[in-house]
Amino acid sequence: MSLTQEFDTIAAISTPLGEGAIAIVRLSGTDALKIAQSVFKGKDLAKVASHTINYGHIFEAERLVDEVMVSVMRAPKTFTREDIVEINTHGGIAVTQEILQLLLRSGARLAEPGEFTKRAFLNGRIDLAQAESVMDLIRAKTDKAAHIAVKQLDGSLSHMINNIRQEILESLAQVEVNIDYPEYDDVETMTSQMLLEKTSHFEQLLETLLATAKRGKILREGLKTAIIGRPNVGKSSLLNQLLREEKAIVTDIAGTTRDTITEFANIGGVPLELIDTAGIRETDDLVESIGVERSKKALAEADLVLLVLDASNGLTAKDMELLELSKNSNRIILLNKTDLPEQLDVTQLSSDFIRISALKNENLEAVEQKINSIFFAGEIEAKDATVLSNARHIGLVEQALEALKEANNALALGLPVDLVQVDITRCWQLLGEITGEAAPDELITQLFSQFCLGK
Amino acid sequence: MSLTQEFDTIAAISTPLGEGAIAIVRLSGTDALKIAQSVFKGKDLAKVASHTINYGHIFEAERLVDEVMVSVMRAPKTFTREDIVEINTHGGIAVTQEILQLLLRSGARLAEPGEFTKRAFLNGRIDLAQAESVMDLIRAKTDKAAHIAVKQLDGSLSHMINNIRQEILESLAQVEVNIDYPEYDDVETMTSQMLLEKTSHFEQLLETLLATAKRGKILREGLKTAIIGRPNVGKSSLLNQLLREEKAIVTDIAGTTRDTITEFANIGGVPLELIDTAGIRETDDLVESIGVERSKKALAEADLVLLVLDASNGLTAKDMELLELSKNSNRIILLNKTDLPEQLDVTQLSSDFIRISALKNENLEAVEQKINSIFFAGEIEAKDATVLSNARHIGLVEQALEALKEANNALALGLPVDLVQVDITRCWQLLGEITGEAAPDELITQLFSQFCLGK
Repeated sequence: MSLTQEFDTIAAISTPLGEGAIAIVRLSGTDALKIAQSVFKGKDLAKVASHTINYGHIFEAERLVDEVMVSVMRAPKTFTREDIVEINTHGGIAVTQEILQLLLRSGARLAEPGEFTKRAFLNGRIDLAQAESVMDLIRAKTDKAAHIAVKQLDGSLSHMINNIRQEILESLAQVEVNIDYPEYDDVETMTSQMLLEKTSHFEQLLETLLATAKRGKILREGLKTAIIGRPNVGKSSLLNQLLREEKAIVTDIAGTTRDTITEFANIGGVPLELIDTAGIRETDDLVESIGVERSKKALAEADLVLLVLDASNGLTAKDMELLELSKNSNRIILLNKTDLPEQLDVTQLSSDFIRISALKNENLEAVEQKINSIFFAGEIEAKDATVLSNARHIGLVEQALEALKEANNALALGLPVDLVQVDITRCWQLLGEITGEAAPDELITQLFSQFCLGK
Repeated sequence: MSLTQEFDTIAAISTPLGEGAIAIVRLSGTDALKIAQSVFKGKDLAKVASHTINYGHIFEAERLVDEVMVSVMRAPKTFTREDIVEINTHGGIAVTQEILQLLLRSGARLAEPGEFTKRAFLNGRIDLAQAESVMDLIRAKTDKAAHIAVKQLDGSLSHMINNIRQEILESLAQVEVNIDYPEYDDVETMTSQMLLEKTSHFEQLLETLLATAKRGKILREGLKTAIIGRPNVGKSSLLNQLLREEKAIVTDIAGTTRDTITEFANIGGVPLELIDTAGIRETDDLVESIGVERSKKALAEADLVLLVLDASNGLTAKDMELLELSKNSNRIILLNKTDLPEQLDVTQLSSDFIRISALKNENLEAVEQKINSIFFAGEIEAKDATVLSNARHIGLVEQALEALKEANNALALGLPVDLVQVDITRCWQLLGEITGEAAPDELITQLFSQFCLGK
């Protein structure tokens, strides 16, 4: 879809597919009301007030399809800034699909992934960073990740970026005036030194922002985590304990095979993306040789390794082998089964360890602290800080910072201001890609295509 | 919960858990508005009109949790007949859970499964058969199953049952009057013969209804189907073809392990609950002995067996073995790979077969027809017939019919009308359990506990 074409009316199922109490089929566009009305018996939707909920029935010709509530929201006070109709059905996959099909036959087009949000962006309701935060919010695996996303949705990152860009623009304008109109005496001449002061300030702002990125990225995307250990040390108990937590998440896109399921556990707000959980579930039944191969593979992929030892037994040769194998990883050694008398001689362990009982869910908060010390250098999260979490944003800030540093170096060497203009402009441009003000069409198209259907 | 206690305010997530564009947290009860307002910044919900949608933000103390749309629906024109507030969030598991937790801390109680619908029933909005159809609609695996459920939701079954009960009641009343007031000359005396005419008519109505039950039950619950065949005949292709259909469904309850996933395929509106699909996916890699064991197990559980043969090769000893194994099952023999030249000598097959190409998705409609002829004796579905599909309803109609038949037998033997009164009353009572008019409290509690959360 070209970004400039006139918008047609799109439709999609906006709730996750599954057996739920309510499902929503959403329409957006000029004909949203007309198309909804063509399959709806109840009030005349063209006449109802905006932002109202209307009871009625969906019919396919004379056949009743479902009893529904229809929400009517008229442009421009809507998410997309277009007319939006949301049909709330009784839930269930078959009937919801059927209503969608009916709308498509009545003149709506199936929305592309992210197309509702894309329209919100193109119609100026939100900027690109905010649009991306919508998706981050949906994908958030823990409360903390959701907090970052909602702050960004509220515009905190955009606001900061816009302020920096505005200041850069003012500096650039002043340089421009000096060059183009040297005769204007009333405009202060921008010297290299003066510009350097400003750009050093910008550099510091971007450095501060970038310092939040590591934590932000981990909180958003999770740590790829491998749980390893010989059979019967309690890997599956630990796994089940981690997954049984209230917020444990199993993601699954309906229609894909079960092989693609990714499981996330949550330790103190840090999402752990568990590697090869099927393997862990099976391990105690597998012959040892397969276990070691799987462990090695998991280790190679992992950001974090949880090595489980059985504290109620002495170290075995196999334990020693796994200790050796994982020694160069970001590893946390867990002495499991503290509910039993300790038999393991801890003096044999050359590195730190944490005693836990997976069975009794004891001391997992110490694991959280350890993760903090490994990945966040123990730093405490500033409650109101704007956090950079999106890989695209991090990349752009890094590039912008690099351009700025080149400008600063040149300025420090005393080069004239007009020669560093291009680097500063580039920095301004790159930051603009974050909010979308300076983002190319292809980038925008590609970005929204990663969204989920119906958003 | 006792059925008569005053209702407190309940809350639950009403959309399926997952990464979706919109999630809904629903509140119902006297304090729904007050509780929602306590975490909401936007309009004063106490003052907005009923059935309106209101933009605003959810806050936990000073921290922004999400940007939301809040639907306010005031009693009594709501699903539960109580005040209902629905908070539409940006979707996503973490933030939606967080909003629910916030509401629970603000005075709402977590709803039991089915509690919203239970309140709709207890407050007289719908009867029991309609409440059950809500759940059937959610669980419907195909369009046809959804059609049956929505007709029932619209009250077609309840209407029919109520009519029969009313007629029975009138007959009973007349018998009663004859017994209690034999001196009333102006009331026609109900003879055994007259009563028999009426009860025979009722019997016929119930028989007709019951005749729809087999089809209804299959359309609602699906046929347990085993796909068997030796390696490389195309079982996985067939499986993928069946599952790739637009309406193919993978059910999964978030939070359970992947082992419990059930897959449904859809052939012409008939849901096939596939047995051991993991097995099928793996079979071509498994050693044959494991394959045979799995096949035997699958056969024992199956309502329907799809035996796949490779038409592009001759029959093997293994094929013969599977043909023999499945000969007493409801079996459909599929000659797959018709896209290749046929090498299999069909005269070796003692039963019917259907040529298909799983690869090219050819001729699967013939499989549908065959299923119709096996399970529905080829009968064509009457478009507007009320169909009995719920196992509980079927059981009650069967029992009611039995009671009626005893009455009829007694009447045919010339026994006096007052002696058969008890059987007819029992029939009336049993039918009342379908709509809930004569259903005991424990039954109601147990029924709703099978619903999904948030409904």
